[in-house]
Amino acid sequence: MSTSHPSPQDAEDAYYDAIDDQDLEAMMSVWEESDETLCLLPMMPAQRGTGAIRQCWEPFLQGDMKFDIEIKHLSWIESGEIAIHLVEERVKVPGQGEPQSVYASNIFRKGSEGWRLLMHQNSPTPPPPGLQMPEMG
Amino acid sequence: MSTSHPSPQDAEDAYYDAIDDQDLEAMMSVWEESDETLCLLPMMPAQRGTGAIRQCWEPFLQGDMKFDIEIKHLSWIESGEIAIHLVEERVKVPGQGEPQSVYASNIFRKGSEGWRLLMHQNSPTPPPPGLQMPEMG
Repeated sequence: MSTSHPSPQDAEDAYYDAIDDQDLEAMMSVWEESDETLCLLPMMPAQRGTGAIRQCWEPFLQGDMKFDIEIKHLSWIESGEIAIHLVEERVKVPGQGEPQSVYASNIFRKGSEGWRLLMHQNSPTPPPPGLQMPEMG
Repeated sequence: MSTSHPSPQDAEDAYYDAIDDQDLEAMMSVWEESDETLCLLPMMPAQRGTGAIRQCWEPFLQGDMKFDIEIKHLSWIESGEIAIHLVEERVKVPGQGEPQSVYASNIFRKGSEGWRLLMHQNSPTPPPPGLQMPEMG
């Protein structure tokens, strides 16, 4: 699939749409094709490179488990060809109780085909979930 | 304190040295002075900006609790003025049993005064701790 993302936000939207649609090919088209990409999902080993990242997403996007993820934007940084977005993901698995919140940083890099995901990292939010940071200006 | 870090690795070394030395001023001199900086320590709320980051490090670096952190480098990306390091931290608090492993990504930005820390994010390693990624080339 050849998809061009004109902004980091377009690439981020495509990432969460791919999860929502359980579309592995759409997910992989968001990622930069390189051995540098890094994916740290909750409680899973760090994965590096296109092959490893595809392998770690396969069971989530081709299985029966459906995720419903709501995103709250917390902060972003743009610096040259790199964009860093910090979001809070509220992840709900239907039939499995209350949504769980996790932080996610999504780092995008601009290449010849627009913006693509270079790194994704989840971290737990503290119990009780809360954020002590200034509102975005 | 005016400290110049000629490489991302110098800045990273200074970060862990500051923890080892329990030196809050040295810690703060590693961070870029800006409202964009982000710090996500284990099980703590995300912190943004110099003031919030100082406040969250103060109790760790001015208290009685001493950390012994061993670093294992896993991966790095350099892209223009941004460098992203993924490491595994083995954190030992003397008298508190076995070291705990956590991932950390350290993102540095090159400015007029050399490389400084722009973002730090910890994530748990999976139980049992393990890494399924290719060796660094």
